[in-house]
Amino acid sequence: MILPKSFEHLMNSLTILPGVGEKTAERFVYSIYNNDIQEIENLSEALINFKKNIKICETCGCLSDENICNICLNEKRDKTTLCIVEDSKSVFFIEKTGKYNGLYHVINGLISPIDGIGPEDLNVSNLVSNRINNEIKEVIIALNPTIEGEVTSLYIQKLLEKYNVKVSRLSYGIPMGTDIEYLDPIMITKAWEDRKVIS
Amino acid sequence: MILPKSFEHLMNSLTILPGVGEKTAERFVYSIYNNDIQEIENLSEALINFKKNIKICETCGCLSDENICNICLNEKRDKTTLCIVEDSKSVFFIEKTGKYNGLYHVINGLISPIDGIGPEDLNVSNLVSNRINNEIKEVIIALNPTIEGEVTSLYIQKLLEKYNVKVSRLSYGIPMGTDIEYLDPIMITKAWEDRKVIS
Repeated sequence: MILPKSFEHLMNSLTILPGVGEKTAERFVYSIYNNDIQEIENLSEALINFKKNIKICETCGCLSDENICNICLNEKRDKTTLCIVEDSKSVFFIEKTGKYNGLYHVINGLISPIDGIGPEDLNVSNLVSNRINNEIKEVIIALNPTIEGEVTSLYIQKLLEKYNVKVSRLSYGIPMGTDIEYLDPIMITKAWEDRKVIS
Repeated sequence: MILPKSFEHLMNSLTILPGVGEKTAERFVYSIYNNDIQEIENLSEALINFKKNIKICETCGCLSDENICNICLNEKRDKTTLCIVEDSKSVFFIEKTGKYNGLYHVINGLISPIDGIGPEDLNVSNLVSNRINNEIKEVIIALNPTIEGEVTSLYIQKLLEKYNVKVSRLSYGIPMGTDIEYLDPIMITKAWEDRKVIS
């Protein structure tokens, strides 16, 4: 191959990014060639810095700079509501709406027998053992409105039956089969307000 | 903002890539979170290595690992034909077809009065002073078939009038208004074979 080695190496390295094939990677390399060295040093350092320093909050399971995330540490958050989400993406997305001031619990996936993912693969045992305490009055389940989300929601609902907490889930104002973070903030806010008590 | 600092920093750094907005950058960061640290260290190093080591061949103007590129150094290349291209992309693309064994000259752009780019902004003075020698029998102009490509082609044709070389350009078997590197290799091979002597 005639490509300069450093060019080809960078091109191949870039294809680890999702949706980036050879053609896109090549386009990225030509663009990187025209970038300032400072910008590229900055990107190079940001990659390592992120990989080495990003943590999972020991309390809620969300991505965080520290061992305990800013939401869990924030004294002003309402300690009586706990919102259960699939992943950190959902946390950041819900935070953007500015409508919720309670705590989160990231279960890190959804039950999916077809993919061999059972409750034991998710961050749920920690939920009942550590998160459900006397302060918690309501658990809001905010999982994707898919079959996996429904199954997981039912599982959590069963798990919480013996505790004296209200369990709600987002109302179906949100269209089925979509990813929560692609929704309009107004749409999710509406679904938030219309949430329906299920046990 | 609630995003972890290292997350947000990486996300912003990634938006320097062409066509990468906030949403795509965010998707890249979640994917990077799931990559092995080795893969990311590799990408991080590849970025710096490329920026620090990539050179412009002192002879032909193509991107190269060394001061003189592999094509110019290759004793087996035909020294009697010189192909003039807009950029290194075109060199790598033509090399992929495997149909050409001569030398290249990268002019690094096209004349475009509307963008204020004149012949003095291109790598053309070097063309007549250093590249056209007694060995060169034919100059093949392989510029994009656009107005700018045509103007630049005419300019080079004029420049070469006083030299005893055949000047040809790719035939219009290639569709007008496209970028050379997006063409089918068969299409470009055809245009190569059908090239037309213009002076």
